[in-house]
Amino acid sequence: MKSPNFNDVLDAKLRIEPYIHHTPVLTSRSLNEITGNELFFKCENFQRAGAFKFRGASNSVFSLTEAEAKRGVATHSSGNHAQALALAAKIRGIPAYVVMPKNSKKVKIDAVLGYGAEVIFCEPNLASREETLDKVVQQTNAVFIHPYNNNFVIAGQGTAALELLNHTPELDYIIAPVGGGGLLSGTSLTVRSVSDNTKVIAAEPEGADDAKRSLQSNQIVPSINPNTIADGLLTSLGTLTFELIKKYVQDIITVSDVYIIRAMRLIWERMKIVVEPSSAITLGLLLEKKIEIKNKRIGLILSGGNVDLDHLPWNM
Amino acid sequence: MKSPNFNDVLDAKLRIEPYIHHTPVLTSRSLNEITGNELFFKCENFQRAGAFKFRGASNSVFSLTEAEAKRGVATHSSGNHAQALALAAKIRGIPAYVVMPKNSKKVKIDAVLGYGAEVIFCEPNLASREETLDKVVQQTNAVFIHPYNNNFVIAGQGTAALELLNHTPELDYIIAPVGGGGLLSGTSLTVRSVSDNTKVIAAEPEGADDAKRSLQSNQIVPSINPNTIADGLLTSLGTLTFELIKKYVQDIITVSDVYIIRAMRLIWERMKIVVEPSSAITLGLLLEKKIEIKNKRIGLILSGGNVDLDHLPWNM
Repeated sequence: MKSPNFNDVLDAKLRIEPYIHHTPVLTSRSLNEITGNELFFKCENFQRAGAFKFRGASNSVFSLTEAEAKRGVATHSSGNHAQALALAAKIRGIPAYVVMPKNSKKVKIDAVLGYGAEVIFCEPNLASREETLDKVVQQTNAVFIHPYNNNFVIAGQGTAALELLNHTPELDYIIAPVGGGGLLSGTSLTVRSVSDNTKVIAAEPEGADDAKRSLQSNQIVPSINPNTIADGLLTSLGTLTFELIKKYVQDIITVSDVYIIRAMRLIWERMKIVVEPSSAITLGLLLEKKIEIKNKRIGLILSGGNVDLDHLPWNM
Repeated sequence: MKSPNFNDVLDAKLRIEPYIHHTPVLTSRSLNEITGNELFFKCENFQRAGAFKFRGASNSVFSLTEAEAKRGVATHSSGNHAQALALAAKIRGIPAYVVMPKNSKKVKIDAVLGYGAEVIFCEPNLASREETLDKVVQQTNAVFIHPYNNNFVIAGQGTAALELLNHTPELDYIIAPVGGGGLLSGTSLTVRSVSDNTKVIAAEPEGADDAKRSLQSNQIVPSINPNTIADGLLTSLGTLTFELIKKYVQDIITVSDVYIIRAMRLIWERMKIVVEPSSAITLGLLLEKKIEIKNKRIGLILSGGNVDLDHLPWNM
């Protein structure tokens, strides 16, 4: 399969326009002072279903033909993609089947059920996930929508950076988190086409640095036993996302959990918004200062805001 | 002293325009569904220094003559007014003296110090507060800016409702919290002058219901041993705020802490914004349903977002 191109992002923009939120770009005097840069936060924590994932999910769902749509959609996810796909399917009025590990948090299961999807439980390991998904697809004939290694998903995620650059041109950098690479590859696709002088930097948890090692070794290194507070960034790159990231991303910088948590708390305290660790890592990258960036205009993509308020990292 | 009028609010608007944030008005599909109304949240948690208090404080500070300003400003407050006044004074480049109880939280003291104010500690009781403030004013000749019983403060707070109604006309209700009554009286002043059909309803903690009892008995009932999670709403009404509230406020409804906390958590989870209990009480009023309001357009003033992230009410 060929990776998507920027036209796919433009198509996605038109397709999902009626359904998504145009999320705000916020600034913070005090975070500018602390980091010595001018920061522009693209607030996908305010996106529907609480994360950028709704962009890719709705682009996928509304790309289906009538015949495909009738069959419904299926995925395996315990996170934001599950909620996003369930909501997109609900809006189109088609079934959604979500395979979730049976030890998933109740709040996450309830959210998916709340959007009207059917939840099928599996054992908490990759083999059981894939096997269960295969069964569901065989039984229902639903269309599998991969959380990130899917051209419609990647193109949809690229619309966040497009909105950001339309709102705030002439950025020196855009920092995006990387897990499976859907957001990062979509972002890089957009940036390379609309803003020549903007560098794309990825923020990856130190304890889940498979993307960094993949770039270094020029082949996809699987994420094995990742260990980080950023629970949205545990997965390995996919073939499609890896191709784009190799071509268009300047650098992948790892961030330690200490700085992820510090950044998360700073964003809550200073900006008064709720973001999840996987979002805060972008600011964490600047705080940890493994690379020197000063006096630059920097866009940071805050990917989502779905957190368990009973278990905040600074209370653990 | 005569209470302020709507012209004072318009003057305040012009005066503080260069310094304040025009805070956004946010909406939430899921909170609309839960309450059965159309809600518009005026997000003063995004105001500078984290609360609407900066409106009144900056209106006071920038109303001073050059001669007065040189003397500096003083107040007693352990809360948002202290930070707001410190910031306003810093912007004008004049001294600020803040009397705080010596058992104030370190995070609050640090915030006031961070804005360059001088902090003078007192015993944690009203007599010591007032005595210490008197001494400070005698020694420094600074101008005392009362947290709410001050015409410039009241007029400044009234600008939040003005922005809200400019952005979102034809509201059936505006709900504002009431503590000392600065925000509530300023809001009511604005609403009565620009939006005939909008009712102003106050939300007051059940465990600090002195304002409700003041209205009932037609005299200011002092707040004695208040007990509520809404730590910004502990104070008694002032003479100026009471006059306006008597004239212009339709009703004061008490809200139990259970519903304040429930509302706070809902706002964090669904809207992905950080608000303090004293803000969340406005939504709590609708959740608790002591009065029946359905299918209405309702503005809710979210007063601030300064919370101690180490001590969230649902973790206590």
